[in-house]
Amino acid sequence: MTHQAQSGPTHLGKRRKIIDGLEKITGQAQYPADLNLPGLVHLRPVLSPYPHARIAGIDVQAARAVPGVVAVLTGADLNGPRPAHSRSNMLLAGDEVVFAGQPVAVVVAETEAQAADGAALLDIEYQPLDSVDDAAQALQDEVLVWPQGMPRPDTSMASLHGGGASEEAEQAPSNIHQRQEFKRGDAEKALQEAHTVIQRTFRTSRVHQAYLEPHAVVAQPGVKAGEVTVYTSTQGQYVVRREVAGALNLPERNVHVVPLKVGGGFGAKYGLVDALVAAVALKLRRPARLVLTRSEDMQTTTPTPEIEIELRLGADAQGNLMGLAVDATIENGAFVSGHAGIIATMIGGLYRCENVHITGTELLTNRPPVGAYRAPGVPQALFALESAVDDLARTLGQDPLELRLQNAAGGGDPTGTGRPWPDIGLKACLERAKDHPIWKNRHQTPNEGVGLAAGGWPGGFSPAGAVCRVDTDGTVRLHVGSVDISGVHSSMVLIAAETLNVDPDSVEIVQGTTDSGPYAPNSGGSQVTISLSGAVLDATQQVKNQLLDLAAHHFETHRDDIELAEGHASLRGVPGKTVSIGQLAGMGQRLPGGPGPVVAEGRAALKAGAPGFIAQLVKVRVDPDTGHVTPLEAATIQDVGFALNPLLVEGQMHGGSAQALSIGLYEGQVFADGQLTNPNFMEYTFPRADDLPPLEAVIVEHPSEHGPFGARVVGEPPMTAGAAAVANAIRDAVGVRVTDLPVKPETLWQLMTRQESGQTG
Amino acid sequence: MTHQAQSGPTHLGKRRKIIDGLEKITGQAQYPADLNLPGLVHLRPVLSPYPHARIAGIDVQAARAVPGVVAVLTGADLNGPRPAHSRSNMLLAGDEVVFAGQPVAVVVAETEAQAADGAALLDIEYQPLDSVDDAAQALQDEVLVWPQGMPRPDTSMASLHGGGASEEAEQAPSNIHQRQEFKRGDAEKALQEAHTVIQRTFRTSRVHQAYLEPHAVVAQPGVKAGEVTVYTSTQGQYVVRREVAGALNLPERNVHVVPLKVGGGFGAKYGLVDALVAAVALKLRRPARLVLTRSEDMQTTTPTPEIEIELRLGADAQGNLMGLAVDATIENGAFVSGHAGIIATMIGGLYRCENVHITGTELLTNRPPVGAYRAPGVPQALFALESAVDDLARTLGQDPLELRLQNAAGGGDPTGTGRPWPDIGLKACLERAKDHPIWKNRHQTPNEGVGLAAGGWPGGFSPAGAVCRVDTDGTVRLHVGSVDISGVHSSMVLIAAETLNVDPDSVEIVQGTTDSGPYAPNSGGSQVTISLSGAVLDATQQVKNQLLDLAAHHFETHRDDIELAEGHASLRGVPGKTVSIGQLAGMGQRLPGGPGPVVAEGRAALKAGAPGFIAQLVKVRVDPDTGHVTPLEAATIQDVGFALNPLLVEGQMHGGSAQALSIGLYEGQVFADGQLTNPNFMEYTFPRADDLPPLEAVIVEHPSEHGPFGARVVGEPPMTAGAAAVANAIRDAVGVRVTDLPVKPETLWQLMTRQESGQTG
Repeated sequence: MTHQAQSGPTHLGKRRKIIDGLEKITGQAQYPADLNLPGLVHLRPVLSPYPHARIAGIDVQAARAVPGVVAVLTGADLNGPRPAHSRSNMLLAGDEVVFAGQPVAVVVAETEAQAADGAALLDIEYQPLDSVDDAAQALQDEVLVWPQGMPRPDTSMASLHGGGASEEAEQAPSNIHQRQEFKRGDAEKALQEAHTVIQRTFRTSRVHQAYLEPHAVVAQPGVKAGEVTVYTSTQGQYVVRREVAGALNLPERNVHVVPLKVGGGFGAKYGLVDALVAAVALKLRRPARLVLTRSEDMQTTTPTPEIEIELRLGADAQGNLMGLAVDATIENGAFVSGHAGIIATMIGGLYRCENVHITGTELLTNRPPVGAYRAPGVPQALFALESAVDDLARTLGQDPLELRLQNAAGGGDPTGTGRPWPDIGLKACLERAKDHPIWKNRHQTPNEGVGLAAGGWPGGFSPAGAVCRVDTDGTVRLHVGSVDISGVHSSMVLIAAETLNVDPDSVEIVQGTTDSGPYAPNSGGSQVTISLSGAVLDATQQVKNQLLDLAAHHFETHRDDIELAEGHASLRGVPGKTVSIGQLAGMGQRLPGGPGPVVAEGRAALKAGAPGFIAQLVKVRVDPDTGHVTPLEAATIQDVGFALNPLLVEGQMHGGSAQALSIGLYEGQVFADGQLTNPNFMEYTFPRADDLPPLEAVIVEHPSEHGPFGARVVGEPPMTAGAAAVANAIRDAVGVRVTDLPVKPETLWQLMTRQESGQTG
Repeated sequence: MTHQAQSGPTHLGKRRKIIDGLEKITGQAQYPADLNLPGLVHLRPVLSPYPHARIAGIDVQAARAVPGVVAVLTGADLNGPRPAHSRSNMLLAGDEVVFAGQPVAVVVAETEAQAADGAALLDIEYQPLDSVDDAAQALQDEVLVWPQGMPRPDTSMASLHGGGASEEAEQAPSNIHQRQEFKRGDAEKALQEAHTVIQRTFRTSRVHQAYLEPHAVVAQPGVKAGEVTVYTSTQGQYVVRREVAGALNLPERNVHVVPLKVGGGFGAKYGLVDALVAAVALKLRRPARLVLTRSEDMQTTTPTPEIEIELRLGADAQGNLMGLAVDATIENGAFVSGHAGIIATMIGGLYRCENVHITGTELLTNRPPVGAYRAPGVPQALFALESAVDDLARTLGQDPLELRLQNAAGGGDPTGTGRPWPDIGLKACLERAKDHPIWKNRHQTPNEGVGLAAGGWPGGFSPAGAVCRVDTDGTVRLHVGSVDISGVHSSMVLIAAETLNVDPDSVEIVQGTTDSGPYAPNSGGSQVTISLSGAVLDATQQVKNQLLDLAAHHFETHRDDIELAEGHASLRGVPGKTVSIGQLAGMGQRLPGGPGPVVAEGRAALKAGAPGFIAQLVKVRVDPDTGHVTPLEAATIQDVGFALNPLLVEGQMHGGSAQALSIGLYEGQVFADGQLTNPNFMEYTFPRADDLPPLEAVIVEHPSEHGPFGARVVGEPPMTAGAAAVANAIRDAVGVRVTDLPVKPETLWQLMTRQESGQTG
């Protein structure tokens, strides 16, 4: 596939509204909370208030007596023989709870209100245990989250289902779950020899994905025993199937997942409470619904880890990077997670540097298990790196943009884990940033500053399939097994319209379930558009050939004499000789001994990914009296390779940079004694529309050699550099270096005060 | 495709239970009447009691005042500008009603009971008009059903949607809608020269399909204006879409049809009341359901026509047929139908005869419009022909089986409309009948007799598509757009299992909607199995190749070294080198730069059909004092080419022959003054289980050159000869020739009495 901008695409690359906008803005789009099945019962979970406790007893009598309450179920009723090994594998607590927010019981009733009344009356007796409340305590390894060792998945099951069983060596129980190292060259030596070394420790808070729609699931028992249909809001229906089947010990084919609309996912919607709802539906033989409250959602789902990064960055006198040493400590909560690899990839891969040593330590604590959030780990990692690079430039008296350009990685340079990058557009973004007014007009007003940071995302990719059909009325239908969380299907429509030369309005997406597929990867990791596009292109090109053949048969000519345009096939050079593609489809459905109906499946499997990079500019004003930071302007300069639909690409850039600024300035979960103290939108600080500046999206098109039409990953990159850019803008405005996210006015004011009194951090 | 019996198929040709049996017998299968959508309203239609009347006024006040009644809608509220041209195009009556049973208004309420209460109070003032009550009156053409001419479809619309607009010449209004002639040779001359001529007139009643599930539809308004989803029990979802779109003047892509389970169709379930329910749902913006009562269903739906056949059959002294003249009069009710062609095809095609002249006259009356019922027109036509052949044998003193064998058509002989038959198995069936105990042991007991009749069905065929996927757990999924009224999908499962060499239990059917398809023909006319099989075979063979390629890649060998068996791919001759097809599917979903997920679409379009023939044997006892006929034994000897699943083939044979005997002995709608007098199962005579004899199914396998694996059409043939065989058995038992169906004891007693007194009919 090559970039087609030269040959002038008709629909691709043009701004076009999202296809499901109308149903969403009219309230017709169906989310799980809208699904009222006959006989539906409602769930209210009861969450542990203790980070670590033994459950001494549960008295269900009062809850059970509430009118309308159908059942009060505990772990003894629903759990299988094996303890949960992950948040999504977990139904209800067994004898112990391991984090505050863990579901202990569920009250099931005819209405939501009755379930809530029952839940309020459920009497659970806890015996509190010593808990591991933070990373520092975890590292001491005195109190253990799992004194008997982590529960593990049933690998015999996993191998049976074709999954690769990880053969992990047994290790002594410890809160330090894993320590990974990534090395090239000799970082220590390089740092010793460097002209200048920047050394700092950066800390970032847990932040929550804070989607508008809390986790919500409806499950309906099937015809056969142990068969269940799960209607859910998910980024990956096949993952939900695997999780539900695994947690309930069912064959995967007994679990049918129907993906509904997603009210925001950002990495968190992969089936966290689906198994619990499915278990209740199967137990009670009734359809069951759970819509988490905001407070439940923030307590029991999977935010980002808390990450501490100790970083040393050394350069020669000319600003050439010589050595980088990173020690990242990642606080994962009660279950295993893995951010070290991606942190290493980006922190050690943004710039050319021959000597790199990265250590990632993954810790367990008695806190809610963590999960993925848009570009997981990278905003935190690059907050550290890009703050240090900024300091380095200042120390060396160099222009921070030029220093970045001088060191920026390009195709063939290694990522932090050693693999070479394919051709990437980091330099192109930095070049574009040079001319941007925010950058050019910096240094004008006291207490105002401009920050620059670079970012990026390597991007996933995966094989995918798609089926294309043409109907007798000329409608082109694309069957896909992907879920649409960010307008990806709107781009698939454009690819079909482009290939078949039809109006995009005549192309419809048919959303598959886990049963109807065809297979597509998760809508996460920015992989789905680049992975699915090739399958859609393949299917539509075959359909195009089928239409050309039918038209050639119809006009008794050769395929080469036919052209397709505006939903019709015409005999080239013979005006009036035209037939609609709907009529051709009808011929396919009727012609005895003919080719058959117009339908084709397409398959694609990229050889490599199409990483996307950005340069982020932010201008802020700092109130010297309060430390309050006001972001004034922001521009995300992003290499998207080729913008399949610039309107939607800009939407991704706006959303990502908003979230990036937000974790820089506002968001952070606050824990006290293992308890989340701000589990709602009143207390969890969150920007309103007027807390954010105008967000400019500047599209750079440095085509990818692998991505379809040259396109690159889009969703994740705009999230990766905003927090660092904010920190650098603050440094530019008031001369102090912030090292903790979010930047709280009080903390900043203290830093500024210390600076005035001659102390430096 | 060739018959594979020689190479020994593993799954095909073996008896295997129907795939959806469990959900049906456990009551879990979902029919439209089971579909409770939130906010559902219920419809009760109000039917005209007059065969022809002007509607002088409708007073909705009392009906509207019933608690729970949401709306009372009339033609003025729902109908478009054009009058209905067919039963399925009809919403509600306009100024006039043209048959008793025509829906005039619909009462819509929150519950079914409230709707019924409202309907009972609806005050409609009719001014009765002269009506055309039967065929004799229609032929007089004095009173006209359509004095201003038949309403016609909007052909501009039809052509716009790719349908062929029929360019019919305008003709003067008449009840004689169409007269068709089919001729070869000179029948009059041949009959004059014949040694023996049998001449009789045969009359058959209207019979109703009498499915267990009355017509039932749920319609839900869509997101966009004028968009509707129709959940229905249908034999052809694409037909329903076309009918609803046509009646409501909507683009086809705005109509989404979801086929649910079908509780019996037999030719009648193609969307008769679907447009009405869709119109109500769109008008009220609420989901709406209509489940006809039994009485409504029998009054307002489409039974068979009443057919009168005047027949002359001549032969030489050796029993070689010389001439056949047929004059068929077909009473169609208030709208056009067309049975003449198929009647001619079979009545003029069962035997070799050089001189044939068939006239078919299609009449309009003020009765409910007719429709298709299993082998439409053929049981009636062959009742006439096979009775006459029986009489001919008796008159010539020949064995009726030998006379049939002597004249039976074979491959290359013409059908009644002139086209040649492909190779057919009529003679093979008759040969088999010769040795059957019922035939060999005839003539033993007074008042008992054995009848033989031949029958058959040419069978439709149509292009079709199918998609096959393999999932990571080894489940093979087949996507089809066909609906399953007779176990057809159970056969598709066997074809997939055979091709991929997997357990049929690991194959699942994914039922498509009109949106998700892929396209398949209607489940009617015995066409769907033979049409769809090729597409499934094509798709599964491609999937097989994909699996072999993945396994070859996995074992680093050539595809030819791999064999598939029991859901695994193995390296030939190397024990232990084996990988499950689920694992191979997983590789397809993961391998970068690989082939992509395992999925393939198949397409097929037969060049010609695969007609199926039967020989039907029936033994009866006639009570000489009452004329009551008791069927004692029956055997249906049917050429199915190749029985994909003998268990289901036998089911079709049992069902068809039961219906055939039933229309011979029991069933008939009775009209008086244009009114149906037996519109329910209390009064419409219908056999109970103990009214039918044991029904033996004898499978003959004379492979078709066109049908997949040699298979032939199965559903229709067993319906076509039973009535004639009953008549011939009665003739054998008591020596009288019955000419009217059903054979009523009173009529038979009168015939027997007249015979005793020397009168002959």
